[in-house]
Amino acid sequence: MDEIRTGAGAGHPSRAGVVAVGREVRPVAYPRDEVRAADFRVVEVAVPRPGPGEVLVRNTWTSVDAALRLRLRERAPEGYFPAFPLDQPMDGIMTVGEVVESRADGFAPGDTVSHASGWRDYAVVGAGSQALGGVGALTRLDVRDTPPQAHLGVLGATGLTAYAGLFHVAELRDGDVVWVSAAAGAVGGLVAQLAKLHGHRVIGSAGSAEKVRHLREELGLDAAFNYKDGPLPDLLREAAPDGIDVYFDNVGGDHLEAALGALRTSGRVAICGMISEYAARGPSRGPGNLMLAVTKNLTIRGFRGSAHTHLLPEVRRRLGAWVREGRLPYRETVVDGLEQAPAALAALFRGDNTGKTLVRIDGVAHRENLGG
Amino acid sequence: MDEIRTGAGAGHPSRAGVVAVGREVRPVAYPRDEVRAADFRVVEVAVPRPGPGEVLVRNTWTSVDAALRLRLRERAPEGYFPAFPLDQPMDGIMTVGEVVESRADGFAPGDTVSHASGWRDYAVVGAGSQALGGVGALTRLDVRDTPPQAHLGVLGATGLTAYAGLFHVAELRDGDVVWVSAAAGAVGGLVAQLAKLHGHRVIGSAGSAEKVRHLREELGLDAAFNYKDGPLPDLLREAAPDGIDVYFDNVGGDHLEAALGALRTSGRVAICGMISEYAARGPSRGPGNLMLAVTKNLTIRGFRGSAHTHLLPEVRRRLGAWVREGRLPYRETVVDGLEQAPAALAALFRGDNTGKTLVRIDGVAHRENLGG
Repeated sequence: MDEIRTGAGAGHPSRAGVVAVGREVRPVAYPRDEVRAADFRVVEVAVPRPGPGEVLVRNTWTSVDAALRLRLRERAPEGYFPAFPLDQPMDGIMTVGEVVESRADGFAPGDTVSHASGWRDYAVVGAGSQALGGVGALTRLDVRDTPPQAHLGVLGATGLTAYAGLFHVAELRDGDVVWVSAAAGAVGGLVAQLAKLHGHRVIGSAGSAEKVRHLREELGLDAAFNYKDGPLPDLLREAAPDGIDVYFDNVGGDHLEAALGALRTSGRVAICGMISEYAARGPSRGPGNLMLAVTKNLTIRGFRGSAHTHLLPEVRRRLGAWVREGRLPYRETVVDGLEQAPAALAALFRGDNTGKTLVRIDGVAHRENLGG
Repeated sequence: MDEIRTGAGAGHPSRAGVVAVGREVRPVAYPRDEVRAADFRVVEVAVPRPGPGEVLVRNTWTSVDAALRLRLRERAPEGYFPAFPLDQPMDGIMTVGEVVESRADGFAPGDTVSHASGWRDYAVVGAGSQALGGVGALTRLDVRDTPPQAHLGVLGATGLTAYAGLFHVAELRDGDVVWVSAAAGAVGGLVAQLAKLHGHRVIGSAGSAEKVRHLREELGLDAAFNYKDGPLPDLLREAAPDGIDVYFDNVGGDHLEAALGALRTSGRVAICGMISEYAARGPSRGPGNLMLAVTKNLTIRGFRGSAHTHLLPEVRRRLGAWVREGRLPYRETVVDGLEQAPAALAALFRGDNTGKTLVRIDGVAHRENLGG
C-alpha cells in the first residue's frame, strides 16, 4: 500500500481504487536490547480495493506476541519466519476484523474473519493465503458464542500452540507432574489450565507476586513461585519435591537448566519459546547439564504451533466447549489503539502482562471514504 | 571377595569354599582429568564357590567403554548407575566367560555366558541378577557362529545401544541424511553401518586421518571428516551441503551445536554420549543455538541402551544375521591381559581405538586350584 505523507502540506490521495485511509505500524529500527516504542512508527496509507479472490478487512483486534521479537532482527533465526523488513507493514501477525468488501467466494461484508496481516487498520487479504503455516489463512469465524478476540487467543494460534505443545509435543501422560514457565502468559496460562483440566499436578512460575497469586487463585495451580525469589533449582524443588515429568518451556536459559535437573526418568520438555534469549545478539549459554538427558532418558522437543495447524479444528472444538462451559476462564491484557501496539510489546517484555496481550484497534476513527 | 595381599611374605589362603585366586582391577583414585593407569590397581583375591542360584565364571573377555568414565567420579550424574566405589571391584562392566561351576538351573560348566561383573578373572554371578537394566543379566550365549567377544560388541550392549538409538530414539525415516560423530568408535561405527544397510546417506566424523580412511573405505560411508581439520560447521556443511535429518551424538559440546545448525526441519538428535564432557568437573557449556530446536521443530533425545533391553533378542537376531552374511563387518581393538584394562580406557579417551575396545583377560595363567 502506498504511504501517505502526513504533516504540513501533506494531503490524502483521492483516486479510484482507493477505498480508505488506514494506519500501519512499521518497524523503523531493530531493537538493540529492549523493545522500545521508538523503534516503530505509525504511517497512514491509502487502502486499495480488493482484487479478484481478495477481501478488504477492517481490523478490530490484533495480537502482541513475544515471538515477534525473533523477527525484529536483521536476521530471524534459521528456519523461522523471515525478519520484518524495516519501514514495511508487518506481515504475519494474527488479527481479526470485519469484511468490508469481498471479491472472494465464501466471504461477505460483515463477516468476522481472522488472518495474518496485523498491526494495521485495514488489510487486503487473499482467500487462498497459507500465511503462518496455515494458521494465518483467511478464516471466517463463528462469533455467536465467543468474542472475536478469543480467536487470537484460546481459540486461535495461542490455543493451538498450548494444545499441540502439551498433548502432542510433550506427550502428556497420566500422572505426569507438569511445570510451566511464564505460566501467567498467554500460552503458559492455557497450558497450565489444560493440564489441570486433565487432572494433573501443575506447577507454574512467573515474575511477580501478583502473577503468582493469579496462578494460585484464578488458575488453581497446585504450586506457583516467583522465579525472582531465589535460586531456581531450590524454588522448583520446593514446589515439586519429587521432581517433574513434563516441562513446558517459554523461557529457556536457567529455567531449562533447572528443569533438566528436576525431570524424572523418561521426562519430556516441550520448548515453545525462550523469551530470556530473544534479545540476544550472539549465541546464548545453553544448559550446562544436558548430559542428564542421557542419564535420565529425556526427550527435548522444540516446536512451533504453526507446524500443527491440522489440529486447529480440534482445538476450536475442544477448547471452545470448555470456554462455553466456563471451565477455561482466560485472561486478557487489552491495550486500546493500534498506535499502542509497540508499547504493548515492550510492556510484555517487561512482564507487565497477564494472559493474552491484545490490541483493540479502533480503526473506525480513521475510516475515511476517499471515493472510488 | 577377600583381598589377598601379595608381595614378600604374602601367601595364598587355602581354605574350604575358596576355589581359586583371581585378579581384580580396582579404581584407587578418581581421575582428575585424563584417565591414567595409575588411578587403578590390580589385586589378587580368593574366589569363593558359588552359592545356591549362582555360577562361578572364569572371565575371558571384558569391555572397555567411554561411559565408564561417568562412574569414575565422586558422584555419577543423576539418574546414571552409581559411581564405582574406590578400592572395590567394578560391578557393572559387560564381560563374557565360561562357567566353571554352577549351582543355578540352566547353567552348566563349559557354558559361555555374559554378565556384568567385569574387569576381573573370576566372578560369582547370581542367575537372577538384572544388572545394568537387564543387559547385564547372566545369559547363556550361542557361540556356534560368532566368537564370544561379539556378545560384548555387535551382539551385546554395543549393538543394542546402536540399534535402539538409531531406529527407536532417532526414529530413522526413509530418506534421512544421517551424521554420526565418533563414527570410528564402537557404537558410532555400528550406527553408521546400520544406517548404510538401510540405504541412507551417512556422514561420519572422527579424530584422525586414519579413522576417516576407515570410515570411507571399510565402512563405506558417503562422506567422512576429521573434526580437527577446521571449524566443525564448515566441515559438516561440506559433507552435507543440504543439511542433515538425524544426528547421532557421541561427543556433545561443539559437535551437538554444529548438528543443531545443520539439521533440517523436523530433524532428530539421539544423544548416546558426550565424550567431550565426561571429564568435566563443573557444568559444561551447553549448545548456544538451542533456539533452533524451536524454529526447526527439532527433537533431541538422550538415551541409554539399558532402557531398551527388551530389544536385545531382536538385536541378536537381526544383527546376528547380518554378521553371518558378512554384511556387518566390525572392528575390534583388542588389548591383551586384564591388567591392561585401565591403559585401554586411557587410550580410548586419547582416541587410540577403532571399533569396539576389548580386553582378552587370559585368566588361565592365574587359575589355581586351592582345594575345596
